[in-house]
Amino acid sequence: MPIALKNTPVETDCLVIGAGPAALFLIFELGLLEISCHVVDVLPFAGGQCMALYADKPIYDIPGTVKSTGRELVTALLAQASPFNAQLHLGQQITSIERQADGRWLAVTSGNHIFLCKTLVIAAGVGAFMPRKLSHLDLSPFEGTQVFYQPTDKVRHKHIVIHGGGEEALQAALTALAQQPASLTLVHRRDKLDASEDMLQAFNHAVQAGHIHFKVGHVQQVSSSHMSLLDASEHAQDLVFDELWILQGLTPQLGPVANWGLAMQKKQIMVSTENFATSEESIFAIGDVNTYPGKRKLIVSGFHEATLAAYGVAERVYPGQKIALEYTTASPRLHKLLGVSH
Amino acid sequence: MPIALKNTPVETDCLVIGAGPAALFLIFELGLLEISCHVVDVLPFAGGQCMALYADKPIYDIPGTVKSTGRELVTALLAQASPFNAQLHLGQQITSIERQADGRWLAVTSGNHIFLCKTLVIAAGVGAFMPRKLSHLDLSPFEGTQVFYQPTDKVRHKHIVIHGGGEEALQAALTALAQQPASLTLVHRRDKLDASEDMLQAFNHAVQAGHIHFKVGHVQQVSSSHMSLLDASEHAQDLVFDELWILQGLTPQLGPVANWGLAMQKKQIMVSTENFATSEESIFAIGDVNTYPGKRKLIVSGFHEATLAAYGVAERVYPGQKIALEYTTASPRLHKLLGVSH
Repeated sequence: MPIALKNTPVETDCLVIGAGPAALFLIFELGLLEISCHVVDVLPFAGGQCMALYADKPIYDIPGTVKSTGRELVTALLAQASPFNAQLHLGQQITSIERQADGRWLAVTSGNHIFLCKTLVIAAGVGAFMPRKLSHLDLSPFEGTQVFYQPTDKVRHKHIVIHGGGEEALQAALTALAQQPASLTLVHRRDKLDASEDMLQAFNHAVQAGHIHFKVGHVQQVSSSHMSLLDASEHAQDLVFDELWILQGLTPQLGPVANWGLAMQKKQIMVSTENFATSEESIFAIGDVNTYPGKRKLIVSGFHEATLAAYGVAERVYPGQKIALEYTTASPRLHKLLGVSH
Repeated sequence: MPIALKNTPVETDCLVIGAGPAALFLIFELGLLEISCHVVDVLPFAGGQCMALYADKPIYDIPGTVKSTGRELVTALLAQASPFNAQLHLGQQITSIERQADGRWLAVTSGNHIFLCKTLVIAAGVGAFMPRKLSHLDLSPFEGTQVFYQPTDKVRHKHIVIHGGGEEALQAALTALAQQPASLTLVHRRDKLDASEDMLQAFNHAVQAGHIHFKVGHVQQVSSSHMSLLDASEHAQDLVFDELWILQGLTPQLGPVANWGLAMQKKQIMVSTENFATSEESIFAIGDVNTYPGKRKLIVSGFHEATLAAYGVAERVYPGQKIALEYTTASPRLHKLLGVSH
């Protein structure tokens, strides 16, 4: 697609933020109400946590589906939504939204897509999974130059310090070792490492051979080239590095949505159970991202919330019209929309 | 089962009224919380409207199930609930409930079962499907003696009047004709009958041959042996009968539940969206029977309501305990309950 087109605002009745199970069922419910939508998700695939965390693990509590994997559920939800041809924009986040004079929202993504939408539905789950940082230190001055949250590939002759104690950190250490660093140190808070048996064996072997230095302790300070470490017996050590890699797994971050001024409670967006509207007119929130009295973070609730939110969206898209409930079993209009005939 | 046993109260944590899709999923959700239940339904089979009205018709809006018939959905929900061995008591209604001194409810069924339960969940749908009566006349003095809502089988030498114009009424007329009544009259409000082509042809044939009298008009009065009928040109006619069969199909009636003093709005039970509690302590209501702001009578909402009601029930069954949320994908406790191993 030419870049010029990318930057022309796309007008839509509804922009959905997130492509997890609640969002996919929302596409279907909006479709039944003859409302089309665009969907943006930070992950490079549809399905949200179902795909990112348990694509091949079984789920037993989807009503009417005795057992399915995350992948099977997502495949079914995509098939169910397929008559409605929603456009998915993956691998990008909404970075800003701005209310327009006509009441619509202008939303810009990190992929430089621009949407002009009558309604916004936030279905961002627990957020985008981002690398877990050192929460007690601000390393932003060094991020991308000396401090990295993933392994780099220019390791040769460098002093590399890796912070972490899991599979990811150990794998990175062993991979870096093959590229002849000047030195390689792994720092972890505890002496117990959490990785597969094979990985631990290879790592211990490298430590015993003196190729990797393993230090246990808490990071006290970090500069552009030094870090000070306090070990269990309160001894301070100084480590020199060219690069510090912090590899402590991923943690969900709500991201820019947290700064849109919506009423929140414990990092969740507060909604009305009538239509899952937020405190901001024409913005709705469904699934794990929202909260209300009695809220349980379950997919079955996300489906219900998507359904009532679709009616809330419809009231904004068709103002003043009564939105009637029709049943997919009997309605010829819905059969036509679904592309089935009886 | 001996009658003496039938009349001993059965103690249970939860009594569920209705066995439709919301109730079946409630069995599952209660099971995950280690709460067993008994289920009573007026229909002789599980599945409620799904089985009574669209057992072989497709449903397209069950999340994650692109298409299923009512029967397929009910079969899946029963399979999903099967690890929890809920006891179903079919073909009977709860006729009365009474609060006991210890806060539990004593509930009696039309089948003479007695339950002593900590909580009650009403999942009665739109109610029990009962024969449609003549709403403008009170025929109760004659019901069961001269007036019937289904065909009788002692027809020979009797004057039979059938009120109705659908398949059921025409079928009853043709069946009765074979048993040599003294006379057979079909009364309908309009001259247009609503039945299959074959049935209409057989009926018209019997009318032309003088075996069945077909009268169009509105019933003005009914006594034990006479009815007066006003035809389209305002002529009154008098019809004599031994038996009057009113065969106008079924209509849902909420039944005794309507008289339990629960706060209601337009024949629906008002509930909190936090846990689907009614105005009466330890009574909950889920599915088509309840109402709250935003309510849509959809199965997907019944599933969510069942889930949150299960947590509401758990708070009553385990007072003072915090009820934690566990996921079926990861929890060893839930895997054990479900009889699956990983």
